[in-house]
Amino acid sequence: MSPAQDVHAMAPTQGGLRLRSVGLSGIRKPLVVRRPDREHTLAVTFHVAVDLPSGRKGSDLSRNAEILAEVVDETATRPVGSLEMACSRIASELLARHSYATEASVRASAEYFLRQGVSEEKRSFEDYTLLAEATVSHAPSGGLLLQRAVGAEAVGMTACPCAMETCRELLTREHPQLADPALRDLPMITHNQRNRTRLVFEIAEEAEVEVDRVIAAIEAAQSSPTYAILKRGDEGEVVLRAHRHPKFVEDVLRDLLASLPERFPALPDAVAVRASTVSEESIHKYNVEASHRITLGELRHPTDG
Amino acid sequence: MSPAQDVHAMAPTQGGLRLRSVGLSGIRKPLVVRRPDREHTLAVTFHVAVDLPSGRKGSDLSRNAEILAEVVDETATRPVGSLEMACSRIASELLARHSYATEASVRASAEYFLRQGVSEEKRSFEDYTLLAEATVSHAPSGGLLLQRAVGAEAVGMTACPCAMETCRELLTREHPQLADPALRDLPMITHNQRNRTRLVFEIAEEAEVEVDRVIAAIEAAQSSPTYAILKRGDEGEVVLRAHRHPKFVEDVLRDLLASLPERFPALPDAVAVRASTVSEESIHKYNVEASHRITLGELRHPTDG
Amino acid sequence: MSPAQDVHAMAPTQGGLRLRSVGLSGIRKPLVVRRPDREHTLAVTFHVAVDLPSGRKGSDLSRNAEILAEVVDETATRPVGSLEMACSRIASELLARHSYATEASVRASAEYFLRQGVSEEKRSFEDYTLLAEATVSHAPSGGLLLQRAVGAEAVGMTACPCAMETCRELLTREHPQLADPALRDLPMITHNQRNRTRLVFEIAEEAEVEVDRVIAAIEAAQSSPTYAILKRGDEGEVVLRAHRHPKFVEDVLRDLLASLPERFPALPDAVAVRASTVSEESIHKYNVEASHRITLGELRHPTDG
Amino acid sequence: MSPAQDVHAMAPTQGGLRLRSVGLSGIRKPLVVRRPDREHTLAVTFHVAVDLPSGRKGSDLSRNAEILAEVVDETATRPVGSLEMACSRIASELLARHSYATEASVRASAEYFLRQGVSEEKRSFEDYTLLAEATVSHAPSGGLLLQRAVGAEAVGMTACPCAMETCRELLTREHPQLADPALRDLPMITHNQRNRTRLVFEIAEEAEVEVDRVIAAIEAAQSSPTYAILKRGDEGEVVLRAHRHPKFVEDVLRDLLASLPERFPALPDAVAVRASTVSEESIHKYNVEASHRITLGELRHPTDG
Repeated sequence: MSPAQDVHAMAPTQGGLRLRSVGLSGIRKPLVVRRPDREHTLAVTFHVAVDLPSGRKGSDLSRNAEILAEVVDETATRPVGSLEMACSRIASELLARHSYATEASVRASAEYFLRQGVSEEKRSFEDYTLLAEATVSHAPSGGLLLQRAVGAEAVGMTACPCAMETCRELLTREHPQLADPALRDLPMITHNQRNRTRLVFEIAEEAEVEVDRVIAAIEAAQSSPTYAILKRGDEGEVVLRAHRHPKFVEDVLRDLLASLPERFPALPDAVAVRASTVSEESIHKYNVEASHRITLGELRHPTDG
Repeated sequence: MSPAQDVHAMAPTQGGLRLRSVGLSGIRKPLVVRRPDREHTLAVTFHVAVDLPSGRKGSDLSRNAEILAEVVDETATRPVGSLEMACSRIASELLARHSYATEASVRASAEYFLRQGVSEEKRSFEDYTLLAEATVSHAPSGGLLLQRAVGAEAVGMTACPCAMETCRELLTREHPQLADPALRDLPMITHNQRNRTRLVFEIAEEAEVEVDRVIAAIEAAQSSPTYAILKRGDEGEVVLRAHRHPKFVEDVLRDLLASLPERFPALPDAVAVRASTVSEESIHKYNVEASHRITLGELRHPTDG
Repeated sequence: MSPAQDVHAMAPTQGGLRLRSVGLSGIRKPLVVRRPDREHTLAVTFHVAVDLPSGRKGSDLSRNAEILAEVVDETATRPVGSLEMACSRIASELLARHSYATEASVRASAEYFLRQGVSEEKRSFEDYTLLAEATVSHAPSGGLLLQRAVGAEAVGMTACPCAMETCRELLTREHPQLADPALRDLPMITHNQRNRTRLVFEIAEEAEVEVDRVIAAIEAAQSSPTYAILKRGDEGEVVLRAHRHPKFVEDVLRDLLASLPERFPALPDAVAVRASTVSEESIHKYNVEASHRITLGELRHPTDG
Repeated sequence: MSPAQDVHAMAPTQGGLRLRSVGLSGIRKPLVVRRPDREHTLAVTFHVAVDLPSGRKGSDLSRNAEILAEVVDETATRPVGSLEMACSRIASELLARHSYATEASVRASAEYFLRQGVSEEKRSFEDYTLLAEATVSHAPSGGLLLQRAVGAEAVGMTACPCAMETCRELLTREHPQLADPALRDLPMITHNQRNRTRLVFEIAEEAEVEVDRVIAAIEAAQSSPTYAILKRGDEGEVVLRAHRHPKFVEDVLRDLLASLPERFPALPDAVAVRASTVSEESIHKYNVEASHRITLGELRHPTDG
């Protein structure tokens, strides 16, 4: 069948207005990624878009679905190195095949399972979220400009340092023995809760960020990581660890950011990080959260305070 | 305009099959309810449905939307006594106006705000969920049979009794003073978390269930209620209360059910209750939950154990 | 470390009440399933629970997480035949390891990708949902009783038959040529929308239900399946197909149920099916839905109408 | 009780890092707003935050909950003029009571019901979403700088112009009569679906934006608004209207933006608008979307194309 007239390529009915972003959202695809341990099949949610010039009525969205299918299907036989690499490849193809576009952007998120455990023999799959973005645009110089972001979100636990001191004071009134210096370090009751923390690196072309190390950085900054399998003694160990590292969301964020220069020494100063953390407070029906954006250079060479 | 042919009333193309339930879901309406304290405007999500006989192609769904609008709009000037009363009225109208139906059902849920506080001067609005259902059918005797359900969900807090004892043992090894009988009752650290508990009464025609008392029963069964406004000392009090009432989800459910005979003495033995509770475990990424259904008669006259 | 006292095994504080269901929900695991075409890694959400006798305070929930990990991890090297088989195995293990329980239940759902297309060369991954359940209990005879359920949900499209006839009438007034008998079959404009339809088989021990055939049955009952890749001409074909099969949700449900005897001839009469369908109406902000439950025997030997 | 030591005010353990945003999210409150027609009780979700200097360990979050309670509770007896006014008041209080902060921000969203109908006698409540933001910071000049945003989201309907022309061509091959010039304007079948469009104005201190007019602008830009109550003839009218105004998401966005100079003549050129639109494609399982940001000045005096 010969196709009907191309309505998308017609002039828009309303006077020309360039649109920043036109694309698909909520499209799900299975992406095969080769990781150090094994091949992972990620179920990815993609958002893909390009800009639209003022003289064209519509974006040719069926191309977006075709590109996604091609790049993703190919990974079934040739796994890609990372979610972020898939995003970069898709963004480049988008810009190449939408000849009228000046910029193409891809955002992706996917659930990711890692074998973790409170001890070696109690390891099982814990679920995390991977995040990746890629934007390709025509550089003024004539080449292509690629901006990327790669990150992860991990669920762990926080214990409140403020309520801990209040409870110590309350309980010491009832039990004066608690004032004994030998009990000064006794971890006291406080509220603790699920904490979701997200860390995303905005990186230049060559740099690589290993997501397992992003997850490790997040879990080290929470009061404690959490695990699917905890026998009785293990539960105690995790609770104890959390109460020996009581943290506000502010502490989680600062400890996470402060750890990055040492954990990611190879990344250049110009790399920016976006970090956010949410504690689903057990003593409130609402959440508490903190967020920040900063470059590795600013973290390495602080001028503030 | 004279309407087109009534496609709904035609015979179905496929050989006749009666369908149990055909209706609308996810329809939102503002319902004005008169409560002891004040008028509440509830934003309600309704599910309304009737059965469909084998000889009719479609249910006349525009009637459902009309009935909802009529009953709900009327409450703007004449508030209804409860969400459940609105459901009963809607169910009766559904059955009356779908002449081919033998049963009509309505399910509703709505957010509900109550002024609560850890103390009188720190009260502010806490949010809960109201739940109501009504089913009207033709009784074999020729009259109408009305079945109703009314309930609520409240978010509170649980503290784990098992990890508390494990931590007591772990910490006593480090701090032998904790073995002192005077410190035997010292509440010890454990994991605590948000808990969502739901209680629904399946009631006969005349009985009334006051939702504020349903919410009070739930909050009394959790380790502690939670509050929006907690100054430093208050935080300590709530944490202490939760750790002095450490509970598994099993305990929350049993304590809740065991409290009902005393809290709802006027309800007949035949009333059944559905109860469920979910703790969003701080030490795991998954939830722990328990559920049960039992009659008040069985709770009042236990034969088991 | 020797474990602390087993708080779960203690007597409950409140007078004994047996609880129907205590377990974990929202736990995510990657399950490797061997399918005719290839191995699929399903990201599964599990709900696992057992009952709890009146004399025991708590269920030993860490066993649930261990069993899930064992059964699921094993599939990384030895893929299981289906999601439902994994559920049955998990349910059996739950009952075996909770010695105090009389019934164990598992519910699972997972996203599932199939390569589909409007034509062979336009195939790409479409996403569906798999559903499975298994309940194992002690039979009065002394053996074990296994009840299973297996099903799927597919998103497709419905076009409304009623609005189509109304529009035909409205447009024929403006364009009397439409009354020409040669144009009688011209598909007319109507509202069309996303439709989500779910079909679950409740099956006995030996029977097998192939989920790809469940999905095929659902898509055949909708006005049209939908696809990720549709070039201009393909879009027209899909729209045309949907408008040549205009369907109410009632029609989708009846056509689906009526097709089952022919599509699943090997399943015994005692098998029950639960079917439900939701259309996300384009002309309303709410959804329209229908649901039914019936045995294959009743579908094969209708007595009604 | 004298409060325990103020842990929030202590120095942070990690070397000082200023944090951009620390606050509460997901807190729900009932806000009473006086509208031209009547008082509305909005169930609002708030996000409130301030920045945190490098020398302070934690933000005093209980103040945030207190301020929210005070401002919101007051509206029960003295309704506020708009959701946005409540946001501005809360932001000002946040900055005043967090003496260490340099910026306070509030974001709010709420469901909003308006009586609408395809005709006067078929009006009933349709649900929309209101959006508001306020940021208050210390201006370099010494005063306070207030930035505000106000907007809404409305669900309507789009019909695809491209598939319509493809179907016209396909059907004209089968029915050559359709080539008759008298049938040239006959609206043809196409896919149509739910569309969610959002428009937010970023405004300076004095300007006012009436949300009912924002909603009217959005509904005028969609292929058709949608309604809860549609009798048979009405359904035809809405379907016809949508098919006489077939629109891509690109068209919805451009038509919406192009209409703003005439619809909001009093707003200054410096006001920026953020617009986005999502069509839940009936022929795909994914969504199609477009977004843009532009000033009213740029819309009034286009230089592009």
